[in-house]
Amino acid sequence: MERPRHQGMAKNTYMRWRLPLVCLLCEVAMIVLFGVFVRFGPEADAHWEEEKKEMNVTSDIENDFYFRYPSFQDVHVMIFVGFGFLMMFLKRYGFGAVGFNFLLAAFGIQWALLMQGWFHSFKTGKILIGVENLINADFCVGSVCIAFGAILGKTSPLQLLVMTLFQVTLFAVNEYILLNLLHVKDAGGSMTIHTFGAYFGLTVTRILYRPNLEQSKDKQGSVYHSDLFAMIGTLYLWMYWPSFNSAISEHGDAQHRAAINTYCSLAACVLTTMAFSSMLQKKGKLDMVHIQNATLAGGVAVGTSAEMMLTPYGSLIVGFICGIVSTVGFVYLTPVLESRLHIQDTCGIHNLHAMPGLIGGIVGAITAAAATEDVYGKEGFIKAFDFTGSYKTRTPSVQGGFQAAGIFVSLVMAFAGGALVGGILKLPIWGDPADETCFEDDIYWEV
Amino acid sequence: MERPRHQGMAKNTYMRWRLPLVCLLCEVAMIVLFGVFVRFGPEADAHWEEEKKEMNVTSDIENDFYFRYPSFQDVHVMIFVGFGFLMMFLKRYGFGAVGFNFLLAAFGIQWALLMQGWFHSFKTGKILIGVENLINADFCVGSVCIAFGAILGKTSPLQLLVMTLFQVTLFAVNEYILLNLLHVKDAGGSMTIHTFGAYFGLTVTRILYRPNLEQSKDKQGSVYHSDLFAMIGTLYLWMYWPSFNSAISEHGDAQHRAAINTYCSLAACVLTTMAFSSMLQKKGKLDMVHIQNATLAGGVAVGTSAEMMLTPYGSLIVGFICGIVSTVGFVYLTPVLESRLHIQDTCGIHNLHAMPGLIGGIVGAITAAAATEDVYGKEGFIKAFDFTGSYKTRTPSVQGGFQAAGIFVSLVMAFAGGALVGGILKLPIWGDPADETCFEDDIYWEV
Amino acid sequence: MERPRHQGMAKNTYMRWRLPLVCLLCEVAMIVLFGVFVRFGPEADAHWEEEKKEMNVTSDIENDFYFRYPSFQDVHVMIFVGFGFLMMFLKRYGFGAVGFNFLLAAFGIQWALLMQGWFHSFKTGKILIGVENLINADFCVGSVCIAFGAILGKTSPLQLLVMTLFQVTLFAVNEYILLNLLHVKDAGGSMTIHTFGAYFGLTVTRILYRPNLEQSKDKQGSVYHSDLFAMIGTLYLWMYWPSFNSAISEHGDAQHRAAINTYCSLAACVLTTMAFSSMLQKKGKLDMVHIQNATLAGGVAVGTSAEMMLTPYGSLIVGFICGIVSTVGFVYLTPVLESRLHIQDTCGIHNLHAMPGLIGGIVGAITAAAATEDVYGKEGFIKAFDFTGSYKTRTPSVQGGFQAAGIFVSLVMAFAGGALVGGILKLPIWGDPADETCFEDDIYWEV
Repeated sequence: MERPRHQGMAKNTYMRWRLPLVCLLCEVAMIVLFGVFVRFGPEADAHWEEEKKEMNVTSDIENDFYFRYPSFQDVHVMIFVGFGFLMMFLKRYGFGAVGFNFLLAAFGIQWALLMQGWFHSFKTGKILIGVENLINADFCVGSVCIAFGAILGKTSPLQLLVMTLFQVTLFAVNEYILLNLLHVKDAGGSMTIHTFGAYFGLTVTRILYRPNLEQSKDKQGSVYHSDLFAMIGTLYLWMYWPSFNSAISEHGDAQHRAAINTYCSLAACVLTTMAFSSMLQKKGKLDMVHIQNATLAGGVAVGTSAEMMLTPYGSLIVGFICGIVSTVGFVYLTPVLESRLHIQDTCGIHNLHAMPGLIGGIVGAITAAAATEDVYGKEGFIKAFDFTGSYKTRTPSVQGGFQAAGIFVSLVMAFAGGALVGGILKLPIWGDPADETCFEDDIYWEV
Repeated sequence: MERPRHQGMAKNTYMRWRLPLVCLLCEVAMIVLFGVFVRFGPEADAHWEEEKKEMNVTSDIENDFYFRYPSFQDVHVMIFVGFGFLMMFLKRYGFGAVGFNFLLAAFGIQWALLMQGWFHSFKTGKILIGVENLINADFCVGSVCIAFGAILGKTSPLQLLVMTLFQVTLFAVNEYILLNLLHVKDAGGSMTIHTFGAYFGLTVTRILYRPNLEQSKDKQGSVYHSDLFAMIGTLYLWMYWPSFNSAISEHGDAQHRAAINTYCSLAACVLTTMAFSSMLQKKGKLDMVHIQNATLAGGVAVGTSAEMMLTPYGSLIVGFICGIVSTVGFVYLTPVLESRLHIQDTCGIHNLHAMPGLIGGIVGAITAAAATEDVYGKEGFIKAFDFTGSYKTRTPSVQGGFQAAGIFVSLVMAFAGGALVGGILKLPIWGDPADETCFEDDIYWEV
Repeated sequence: MERPRHQGMAKNTYMRWRLPLVCLLCEVAMIVLFGVFVRFGPEADAHWEEEKKEMNVTSDIENDFYFRYPSFQDVHVMIFVGFGFLMMFLKRYGFGAVGFNFLLAAFGIQWALLMQGWFHSFKTGKILIGVENLINADFCVGSVCIAFGAILGKTSPLQLLVMTLFQVTLFAVNEYILLNLLHVKDAGGSMTIHTFGAYFGLTVTRILYRPNLEQSKDKQGSVYHSDLFAMIGTLYLWMYWPSFNSAISEHGDAQHRAAINTYCSLAACVLTTMAFSSMLQKKGKLDMVHIQNATLAGGVAVGTSAEMMLTPYGSLIVGFICGIVSTVGFVYLTPVLESRLHIQDTCGIHNLHAMPGLIGGIVGAITAAAATEDVYGKEGFIKAFDFTGSYKTRTPSVQGGFQAAGIFVSLVMAFAGGALVGGILKLPIWGDPADETCFEDDIYWEV
């Protein structure tokens, strides 16, 4: 690199000792904590052979593995290939997109198994895990992948590991407040994953604001092939989103319904995205950025309500709206966010996750508030919202109120947490790149 | 583009108002029709909790979701990634291949849910949908993706939407005639999907014949990377084809058998494709076009018979033959179709879908005609061909005759429908590209 | 090609008659042998309708298809996309990597169905196949794909077919000795697939040693895009490995447990790979070769023990170690293997499969030897190790000894078999490329 360097010159991006040290420390900590806390859940433990008899389970097919494993694998693909390849659109940051996503997700799922385990699967001193925990860990990491999208190309792998450590922790706390304290439904994570993850990431990137980022503006675009790689990510996210939104729903009709609603919403979203992508351009040509991202907004926006009786046409309406909101966001909002609010959002997560996530939370609140025993059936109604125990007397409209409170809590956690973590990441010890070397693989990779 | 333009100069490919208008109109129509007609089927409805008890269903795992959802996801991948990437072999049409395929499929599945729903899932004024409907919608759209292969690079997105609208409609009618009126078996769609889709597309491209297409001949080839992207499509189609052919078969042995037969047929097909690809070239080198396409012919050709007792070696024989037929078609037939019959078949769907589809129909008719109670077992025989109710007395040889009639009906529908739709697409209002700008992304895409 | 050619000049790489002849002969042989021997197993046969009643099977969902088909499809993707794309890292050998892998695997699965069928599914003169056989055939071919990695770029498609023929045969014999004679557990194939496949391939490449290979050194590296394609392979192997290791485990808790252990091991492996990739380089930058390969070593190394009570933290430890061993191997061992032992290992399978495979065998032996009724439960203990019939009295420590013997047998079979097959492949009749045209697609492909 012979071209002159500005204030970034002094930046030390040498990773040789810092990155290995942090990776190894993290992994050793995981091993110790797993050794102390994590054990197989009853359906993955060899004792199941006996437990089956006690529980009067007549067939191995009743093991939760067979209800959820196919969905788990789809979700797994979304996290590692979906996010990893979607972020490959940058012309010179393919290794960083897929490689750093791989690193942070591999660490994040371990830490999430622990954090979520302590909150949700802790029994007699041990965290008992099964396939549902694996899905939840992937979900939790999904929110980190989302936040990564905002700071893509501007951070070191070390910063990403630190962010993952904190974000997973905050995610688990937020999730606990929503699911356990507020008794909110959010199976596909419009609030816990998308709203939280996106506003967290946007806050972090705001704090890491780089006023001279135009120095690497030429590298912020895509080339023909990088856009085709990104479409791999887009399509896997789009195709498997029905699995995402149904993965942890109740067995039976709820999983079935969540998949159908998501399928419908996503289909509608593609058409309005195409329409507005063409309409908002003078030349009327389609823009790959919109196709890669806004087509997915429909999946985000039924994350809360997919397992409810949203109905197929309700899903179409949500998808219809979100394709428009998201595409319009890319065209009009993203530039303003950068110029006015100093939010540099590399992947446009505000359009794909933040706004559709909020819409998803609101749609969920409305759908819950509108629920009736007539629509759900007497037993289905209780099962759908888990109106049992101390929630036996909760009414749909109260549930709707709590759902809305869940959006609010997620936002507060995202802003506060993002500010805290952004501050930590601003410390000059993590080896982040200089402005003129952002969006470039050869800082951290042998190319 | 400074180079001189010929007769195409006057073509108006400006999409800014036309494409958005059609997309939005279509989607609004879908919302209205879904609102009036589409509801959750019993296994996706919250009332299932009560229905289960009435039906004496003892476990949630009996929900059709768990029988078919993994296959559904595989089929979904075939439609969006399989077809989308297979068509990416053109050097400058990657965005169009994957993007337009995305658009037409997303619209098509919605329209297919309605059309197929009215014919097959209409109860007391409502279409009741479940996972099997999602698969069937994907199947229906598969036939449109096939037809798209013939006109790839020569059509506007508007034309594709119009074609999808009509082809889905005709597909549903044809399917109804075959499955309901003729009581024909065609679980993997050799007739309904491949024969119909391919001859429909070939008829359309015949009518849209462009005598001066050699003006864009240089863009009709592939480059190294575009061939690698296309192999992603090929492999996903190849690997998931067992799911395709088994996705809507009866629960149990039929699904199991369909997957095995398809696996065998496809394996054999690879070897004869490689053999003939090398043999038919002076230099003896393998041709990527054949590997990308002819290796899949074996899956097409057991589409009707895979769920029958075709047997593994029967499948190998079918795959063996189809690898040869398809490769020979690429080398000798495709050039003749263009020069003599004026059929410009961009992807060679005649070799991959039309001929193998016909073979598949015939193999299905023979396999059905050869069925005996000895081979199927008394109950298995009745179940396999659904010889119940008014079909109680139908014999295998009569069934074989009806199967053959199904091929004939599919062909007639394809030719007549293709001629009609081709005529409509020829209208000068859809913004199709001039001859010299065919196979080029930058007409419709920001590049 | 105008540059001068050396001793390779005389090499005849013309495939036109040889390749088609061998392909067609192989396929005809398959058809004849399938015709004589292969039939549907009871759960895929139309008689199942009656058999269900006899066996008191109350639901179609009890069909093995529903227990294993999703895992089968994941394994299928690993073999064809996983291996095919992982080997695409070479800058000019993408067609060969994915295309030859396709050819050898398509042939190999057919031959494996027969070979494994004779040993394991032979009943009253027929091989009865079901979904488990399809998985096992894919597994068997996996070992050939591994060996292919060692000789990638240096062999003709003919040599690969010949190698597949012999290696599948030897694999089936070795597998029979281990599983049936030694009564060893190896569900994920640390010994049968990885150790055997890797040392077999390394022996073959040793015998095919090319002292002047530096003539094509410039083509042995990767380019930016080829590395991104390779990451598709890596990620699919990584994501679906839990399916690989659990695919043929016992129904219920064993499949569940195997998936969890593999998930954990792989996650840990990513962190130590990243750590050592950075640490072992002066500049501290990450090396794509390590990320593409060493991150997978954790999956290999729990192949034997994943279905046992290895526990999540045990899995983390195994993954931790293997990421280090594998990365260190790439940096220090691979160059030495070539310079000292004349083993030219194109993909570094020694680091990804050989060493982790051995570790996996040892971990399996230790985990088996350490098993207690306390940990597994009385019935779980018997079920986990199948201590029934003539193995009723076998103790864990004896089982551990037999497991260790399994490693030894696999190594002996690999070395002896590799030497034999290497000798056969050295015959000057198979059309292998000259040294200066290695790693180049245009010898065997139209480019």
